[in-house]
Amino acid sequence: MKTTLWVAIVMAFAAVAPAAAKEFVLIDSEASTREGDWSVTSKQVGVTAGPAFSISKRALHGGKQEGTDLIEVNNGKMTFWVIPTRGMNVLRVKTGDITLGWTSPIKEVVNPAFMTLDARGGLGWLDGFNEWLVRCGFEWSGHPGMDDGKLMTLHGRVGNTPASKVVVSIDDKAPHRIHIRGRVDEKVFKFADYEAWTEISTEPGSLSLRVSDTLTNRSDYEREFQVIYHGNFGPPLLEEGSEFVGAVKQVTPFNAKAARDIATWTTYLAPTKDFGEQVFNVIPLADATGMTTVMLRNKAANLGVRITYPVDELPYFTLWKNTDTLKEGYVTGLEPGTGFAYTRRIERRSGRVPKLAAGASRSFTLDYTILPDAPSVAGTGKDIAAIQGDQKTTVVNDPEVDPTEE
Amino acid sequence: MKTTLWVAIVMAFAAVAPAAAKEFVLIDSEASTREGDWSVTSKQVGVTAGPAFSISKRALHGGKQEGTDLIEVNNGKMTFWVIPTRGMNVLRVKTGDITLGWTSPIKEVVNPAFMTLDARGGLGWLDGFNEWLVRCGFEWSGHPGMDDGKLMTLHGRVGNTPASKVVVSIDDKAPHRIHIRGRVDEKVFKFADYEAWTEISTEPGSLSLRVSDTLTNRSDYEREFQVIYHGNFGPPLLEEGSEFVGAVKQVTPFNAKAARDIATWTTYLAPTKDFGEQVFNVIPLADATGMTTVMLRNKAANLGVRITYPVDELPYFTLWKNTDTLKEGYVTGLEPGTGFAYTRRIERRSGRVPKLAAGASRSFTLDYTILPDAPSVAGTGKDIAAIQGDQKTTVVNDPEVDPTEE
Amino acid sequence: MKTTLWVAIVMAFAAVAPAAAKEFVLIDSEASTREGDWSVTSKQVGVTAGPAFSISKRALHGGKQEGTDLIEVNNGKMTFWVIPTRGMNVLRVKTGDITLGWTSPIKEVVNPAFMTLDARGGLGWLDGFNEWLVRCGFEWSGHPGMDDGKLMTLHGRVGNTPASKVVVSIDDKAPHRIHIRGRVDEKVFKFADYEAWTEISTEPGSLSLRVSDTLTNRSDYEREFQVIYHGNFGPPLLEEGSEFVGAVKQVTPFNAKAARDIATWTTYLAPTKDFGEQVFNVIPLADATGMTTVMLRNKAANLGVRITYPVDELPYFTLWKNTDTLKEGYVTGLEPGTGFAYTRRIERRSGRVPKLAAGASRSFTLDYTILPDAPSVAGTGKDIAAIQGDQKTTVVNDPEVDPTEE
Repeated sequence: MKTTLWVAIVMAFAAVAPAAAKEFVLIDSEASTREGDWSVTSKQVGVTAGPAFSISKRALHGGKQEGTDLIEVNNGKMTFWVIPTRGMNVLRVKTGDITLGWTSPIKEVVNPAFMTLDARGGLGWLDGFNEWLVRCGFEWSGHPGMDDGKLMTLHGRVGNTPASKVVVSIDDKAPHRIHIRGRVDEKVFKFADYEAWTEISTEPGSLSLRVSDTLTNRSDYEREFQVIYHGNFGPPLLEEGSEFVGAVKQVTPFNAKAARDIATWTTYLAPTKDFGEQVFNVIPLADATGMTTVMLRNKAANLGVRITYPVDELPYFTLWKNTDTLKEGYVTGLEPGTGFAYTRRIERRSGRVPKLAAGASRSFTLDYTILPDAPSVAGTGKDIAAIQGDQKTTVVNDPEVDPTEE
Repeated sequence: MKTTLWVAIVMAFAAVAPAAAKEFVLIDSEASTREGDWSVTSKQVGVTAGPAFSISKRALHGGKQEGTDLIEVNNGKMTFWVIPTRGMNVLRVKTGDITLGWTSPIKEVVNPAFMTLDARGGLGWLDGFNEWLVRCGFEWSGHPGMDDGKLMTLHGRVGNTPASKVVVSIDDKAPHRIHIRGRVDEKVFKFADYEAWTEISTEPGSLSLRVSDTLTNRSDYEREFQVIYHGNFGPPLLEEGSEFVGAVKQVTPFNAKAARDIATWTTYLAPTKDFGEQVFNVIPLADATGMTTVMLRNKAANLGVRITYPVDELPYFTLWKNTDTLKEGYVTGLEPGTGFAYTRRIERRSGRVPKLAAGASRSFTLDYTILPDAPSVAGTGKDIAAIQGDQKTTVVNDPEVDPTEE
Repeated sequence: MKTTLWVAIVMAFAAVAPAAAKEFVLIDSEASTREGDWSVTSKQVGVTAGPAFSISKRALHGGKQEGTDLIEVNNGKMTFWVIPTRGMNVLRVKTGDITLGWTSPIKEVVNPAFMTLDARGGLGWLDGFNEWLVRCGFEWSGHPGMDDGKLMTLHGRVGNTPASKVVVSIDDKAPHRIHIRGRVDEKVFKFADYEAWTEISTEPGSLSLRVSDTLTNRSDYEREFQVIYHGNFGPPLLEEGSEFVGAVKQVTPFNAKAARDIATWTTYLAPTKDFGEQVFNVIPLADATGMTTVMLRNKAANLGVRITYPVDELPYFTLWKNTDTLKEGYVTGLEPGTGFAYTRRIERRSGRVPKLAAGASRSFTLDYTILPDAPSVAGTGKDIAAIQGDQKTTVVNDPEVDPTEE
């Protein structure tokens, strides 16, 4: 359908005066359109200077991924994949032999049509979990639990909600930033009217990727919300001796199991049978401009990833250490959020469930950068040390609650 | 697929002696067919006298409406949209600046593939609720509740069941009535074998639309059933000072909240923040032929809608007043049914869950007519007054049950 | 998509030296491919001797079967239909006027996208149950029940899981056996990493069909599993006076209702209103090579079906007698399994929930043969008698547990 749309748009742009950006609408429920196989290259949009880039979209087939859409962005230096059908989650990022992402037992990019989030006591979300970056939210997030007689399923619904509008745009002016924008709605009569404009953007040739989302409460009522940016990293960044580095005000174990290893909470084991998982609740520090940076780096400190973001947007941070075997999913989650991963009831009681007034918006901006060498890792280490300064990290030895009591 | 089917059929009709109707099969699970984009006009079927009409079908795209089918019927005077994928619900009716329907926070026509009716304690139905007319049923209807250890989800399943067969037909003889028929099955091994032939029909040029459904119990066992015709009206019919007019034997508040405003149960407030909803249980009166008529009219009494139907088919009537804000859904439901909207357990206890013998059928016929001016509103008012005659309306001040006790 | 794939493959085979088999990949989630309408004939693969055969695949349309794939195999003597979208279940087998299968109230081949297994207290599986052969498993099987706080839904998930890879192959050498292989994955982060390679195969011109599956635990952890081969037979094999014949060590009624008729457990009633169902738990005997055979035959003993399989693969056998009315589903299930049909908790307590070590596989091989005449029925009777020899069948009169206590 509309396979010639981009051509028409490009020609329209060619005919007019300099525009802000070349724009391609790939999906739009209001206009009832959805592109089939689609692609565009830097050359086709008239960008000849700088690294050649390309963007394409296709529908996946087979098994539970039947009908899932996938967008591939190659910025000339790195490639990443965005999944409109799964709430604009990012499947993976690759540059050379470096991958952001992990190996889940689940290989397919599961179409939510084949999922039941309420299954298995609210753990249905685990049937599709294999992405590098999954948003959790928006009505609720965190562990499943009953709230007001209703089952709040694991990590909410946004990560399994098909995007209602998807727009690809390329800035006309250098550096010709590439934007993949998707609107993901969470609308339920009587309960929710959230509109989330998500954006993943990158500059051609760069090793950085920016997530900049805006969540708006379109309801006439003030409503609670929760967001966690569940970013997941396996090898090669994660290995025995890898380290999490952050400017940290306070760290607390999530539960008794994490408490046992609070002393080594920043370092990682090799793939470890029967490890399961440990979760640490972190309160980050910010610099004078309100920004914080966290880093995951390998043992040799010559490979890593940094995330830089404003702490007031996402004041809490969950470190999920799932250093189980490779096959089971050897992975760590670096998860800035509006709260921790307890059930919504616990989070509310602890004052970590924010509200959005009627018509109000909250923005979330996170810069993810691959650190491909020792100097970039060292540089990020210095940045983080500067934020920490001479402030002490409070290490709390016991969990604030027993999450199993719910 | 089969894009030339209608041409073949039209030509077949052209070649034979006068037939009863021109018929187009758009969906048929038995023949495993489903039309793609399809349309027919009055001219194409050889109707040249009277208002020109057209009927078309397309598949919707984007977000949670991916793959939903939508049929548009323009009878030359008004246009309405039928949703095969959602149990032949009617999305909206439009004529000039008059709309039957309402503005729900949910804008997409949600494909049931993306829904879980069991979610949120059985309120999953609310994820897709935005139509003018939704059938509730057939195994159960009403509020969610446990019955025999199983969760009966809000308003049953029929409104989220894809139609198995869809037939469009146009009478050969004037007035060339247009029929959109759809078979919606509710078949569950050991539990249900319902076959519902739904029909929406209209005459070219008219402001009326007839719903005429037949529900058949194909099982060898007598089975309970429930049906509610959940018709929903927002502006311009609904406004401050709008009035519900009916020939009423008795009215009872659904619950304590409705009881507070029993005195003003027939009139409507402006969009009102924090109003939520109030529900009134109505027992209508019938005229000598067994028919009743209800009307919703605007404040100036120059715009309205009437519903006329046999009371023995649908002996109970729910008036749902949801005069909350415009964005939340400022809407009132006029809902003839085989019972009220309590859980099936309450309804059964109160003797309002009818049964269908093995092989037996029940028909439901409702005529919806737009009243575009003061005379038609006044005329309907007189019709209703004539049914009421000098019979008194019993106003019960207290709910028959406390629905929260379940 | 890829409609010319088989041509390319056939030509490739034609160009090279004798290969083991001609192979056609119809679905492959890894390669993200799914054939549309597809077919191949014996002639097209160069087989000219023996019965002409054909294999084809198409997508179904209408109602809840929208998007379901169906493969038809005509081996020149009998035809059967495999459903990739429903875990490679077999819908029906036909030869002349003999059918393996039954008439369920459900006529459509339901796409799992429209199902919720958790519905109705975990009986959602009944919304799609109409096949001749359904696999039950793999994480769990049997009646729904809570286990470790989670609802184990009726008969597990595999029968409603779309196949991830489907390969049709035809042996190059006579007798040119036809293989329909499908990989069905049951993968859930933290819970399961099962890979099942299912295979249905047949020789051209034969009345036999072989199911040969291999279930592999790809997890690094030992995991429980359950499998039941739920084969279902209605008329003409099932009629008043039909008999189940098996070499049986022990039979026990499933519950109190079955206990009432333990004396007549091997014979069948005519379609009987209000019969509902009776279930008998059977422990089969094996011959010296470990094989057992069971048979269902009609009253005249001139029509039947036999199943021959290794008892150590599937040591338990459930006989499900559902001789209710024809419309409700007059059907009997012959169900070899790793256990009986109780909830997983009961099965575990009774020692019938096997485990698979990390990386380990279990194979299941069942030969189903239609017995079209008196001699073949008599021959199978002799085979079974030979297995039984002079061993007695222990008939236990009381159920081992009360399944309703859970």
